[in-house]
Amino acid sequence: MKFVIIGGDAAGMSAASRAKRRHPDLDVTVLEKSMDVSYSACGMPYNIAVPDREIDDLVVRHASAFRDKQGIELLTGHLVERIDPKEKKVVGTREGNEPFEVSFDRLLIATGASPVKPSLPGFDLPGVMVLKALDDGRRIKAFLNSRNVKRVVIVGMGYIALEMAETLRELSIAVGMVKPGPTFLPWLYGDMAKVVREELEDNDVALYPGTEITAVEKSESGLKVVCGDRTLPCDMVLVGIGVRPNSSLAGACGLKIGVNGSIAVDRKLRTSVDCIYAAGDCADAYHVVTEEKTWIPLALRANRAGWTAADNACGREMELAGIVGTAVFRTFQMEVARTGLTLEEAMKAGFNARQMMIKSQSRAHAHGGESPIWVNMVGDKATGRLLGVQMVGKEGVAHRINAPAVALHAMMTVAEYSQTDLGYAPPFGPTWDPTLTAANQLLKKL
Amino acid sequence: MKFVIIGGDAAGMSAASRAKRRHPDLDVTVLEKSMDVSYSACGMPYNIAVPDREIDDLVVRHASAFRDKQGIELLTGHLVERIDPKEKKVVGTREGNEPFEVSFDRLLIATGASPVKPSLPGFDLPGVMVLKALDDGRRIKAFLNSRNVKRVVIVGMGYIALEMAETLRELSIAVGMVKPGPTFLPWLYGDMAKVVREELEDNDVALYPGTEITAVEKSESGLKVVCGDRTLPCDMVLVGIGVRPNSSLAGACGLKIGVNGSIAVDRKLRTSVDCIYAAGDCADAYHVVTEEKTWIPLALRANRAGWTAADNACGREMELAGIVGTAVFRTFQMEVARTGLTLEEAMKAGFNARQMMIKSQSRAHAHGGESPIWVNMVGDKATGRLLGVQMVGKEGVAHRINAPAVALHAMMTVAEYSQTDLGYAPPFGPTWDPTLTAANQLLKKL
Repeated sequence: MKFVIIGGDAAGMSAASRAKRRHPDLDVTVLEKSMDVSYSACGMPYNIAVPDREIDDLVVRHASAFRDKQGIELLTGHLVERIDPKEKKVVGTREGNEPFEVSFDRLLIATGASPVKPSLPGFDLPGVMVLKALDDGRRIKAFLNSRNVKRVVIVGMGYIALEMAETLRELSIAVGMVKPGPTFLPWLYGDMAKVVREELEDNDVALYPGTEITAVEKSESGLKVVCGDRTLPCDMVLVGIGVRPNSSLAGACGLKIGVNGSIAVDRKLRTSVDCIYAAGDCADAYHVVTEEKTWIPLALRANRAGWTAADNACGREMELAGIVGTAVFRTFQMEVARTGLTLEEAMKAGFNARQMMIKSQSRAHAHGGESPIWVNMVGDKATGRLLGVQMVGKEGVAHRINAPAVALHAMMTVAEYSQTDLGYAPPFGPTWDPTLTAANQLLKKL
Repeated sequence: MKFVIIGGDAAGMSAASRAKRRHPDLDVTVLEKSMDVSYSACGMPYNIAVPDREIDDLVVRHASAFRDKQGIELLTGHLVERIDPKEKKVVGTREGNEPFEVSFDRLLIATGASPVKPSLPGFDLPGVMVLKALDDGRRIKAFLNSRNVKRVVIVGMGYIALEMAETLRELSIAVGMVKPGPTFLPWLYGDMAKVVREELEDNDVALYPGTEITAVEKSESGLKVVCGDRTLPCDMVLVGIGVRPNSSLAGACGLKIGVNGSIAVDRKLRTSVDCIYAAGDCADAYHVVTEEKTWIPLALRANRAGWTAADNACGREMELAGIVGTAVFRTFQMEVARTGLTLEEAMKAGFNARQMMIKSQSRAHAHGGESPIWVNMVGDKATGRLLGVQMVGKEGVAHRINAPAVALHAMMTVAEYSQTDLGYAPPFGPTWDPTLTAANQLLKKL
């Protein structure tokens, strides 16, 4: 049997490794359009922050290791342009535009996602950057190293944008952030978004939410981002307004397209066409809380989906659990985390949702060095079920979100969560973990 | 109705506050033998580490607040000596040996636990200390402040002993630790206990496990701990070999005594005698994993049990969930955490248990600043159920234990846990949370 995988990042290489580990005799071919495979994309903001660190440090496993040690036919520089489900083959061009054709018995589409660039004038100018693939990071590093970059405008205020704001300020670069939407971090409870916003402002990041962007233009000294009447001069523009799934190959050959343009897959990662699977940022997933399809592209899911797709493609039937949408990031000294649904998402999904925001502390009473932690918890009045948690604070937030995340998987009620036996020691929190305090308070509203 | 509570610490004051909050007209009387109520006992090692910090900073709520703001009849300096379940009264002596008698309709015993002192010669000498009540902390602080303490011998190597080792080293005091048992942290997987041991040794703590203690004796300059042939000179001895439940009052009046001499209570915190409840460190609890009674005295449980006992005593029937035995502590820069059962405990409880120890990292690949995290996970081969986790590392351990703790409450299998959607960002861990890696590896043995 021949197992062909399009895409050599998290999902693709996880699938290839898994298939080869379980079936050493299997013919596993990976077609990757770039020259990079298996790297820590999420690590790029932190790598860019250290000019003398090589971007290639982020490579987790080199192509040669996949080829020589694992026996995977890893073809980099191979761009797939068409999938033919009937003939069971993929066709494309390799570097230098030489056409190629590969037939398959089972196909996995792991084409990932691409950063969205606004279709506005000037977003194709040199110095307008995105950050998704390792090559993007390489390009940004080279740009920063070769020019005297003093000012950067970041378009967008999502995770990557906020992480990059920290990176750029660490490099002593002035940072302005713009986005058309009026609300900074709209999925956070207002008081909590304000805390994050203040952290950015305390670090001299200029924030312009509610600012429509018209164009990027060349200026005498560099670039300028034109926002109606306002013009933001800069040396580089970083676009961080999100990603979209790379599903055009799949769509073009008739595969069912799901949420947000991602490839629709079932719990076994099967697409709508026999023998074709999809996994990673290009595919959708079941949300445990809503039980509906969702599209939340994240690294852990991509790895997992790669494994499960490989298992199913190779004859071992496995179902992948749904996701709860746990995400964490840091911007400067502020940790932000979420799992499950926000109040708005919960209402939209049909829950009779209530929320409770509490402010607690990162360490015990009179311990010293404590900082505030804000927790917003969402529950369903009809069933008492825990629906989601968002959290902000300078310490102890990133890992703390995982306890409610597990509770969401277990479909716990807020009352059940409120009785969980969580750890306590003075350096790490109050006797009542902040998430327990939130649960105790939310219970009064349910 | 008159609700009388013996003991004014975590469980007792939680119960009193809860009862008064829910029933403002209720007559709530608390009898506390010491002059201290409602303080952060666990915070004492960290308070003692800062000589100019007052031990009374650890008081969470002052007696006057309970009396004046909450209307609780809080009688400090009242030692209860006998409970008369038939006559529904308690008798004792107040400061100055004046007898008193208080009748009750409902009684809550929240007498806590006391540190164990070996019944060996010299353990009653001045300079031999324990650390449990605020007065103990006061005594230690006064001793350290008034003498030139250069060397302390700690008897015992449990949580408090290890926290106090850090405290004393921070005060530039030489520390030796002795205990008769041969194994340092016997409930930790050997490799993991070694990591903690090395952390202590790196901080110049001399460890003498497997050392039988014969006596404490006065010496010319201070004290000496005699251990057979070996003699450890010191200025102060700290005994930290554990605590035992204060259940003699309960036992003397015929209440059923449970695990480890604690007071047996049901899920409503009722003792074996009508109208008498028990909560906190003096009472036992159901273990979620074994479904058997256990005795693990910890602060969070005491608070919770106080609430639930008050609810039930005041006519609102509530069942308290079991515990999973989550505990965390820090010694120097090393965080140690556990939840659920160790392999040995699981075998003893009748599970066909397997364990898997893995070493992971506290941050993502090539992030910088990462340190190792060791996770040992225990599962049941018969059912696949997750039974327990122990963890050691310099960062990201204390909060990380709570995700498997919640999974234990939810009776998850290791396979289910391995599919949970935990947060990931490079500063906080690898893509696969170390507990997920442990689950993935343990699955191969189940």
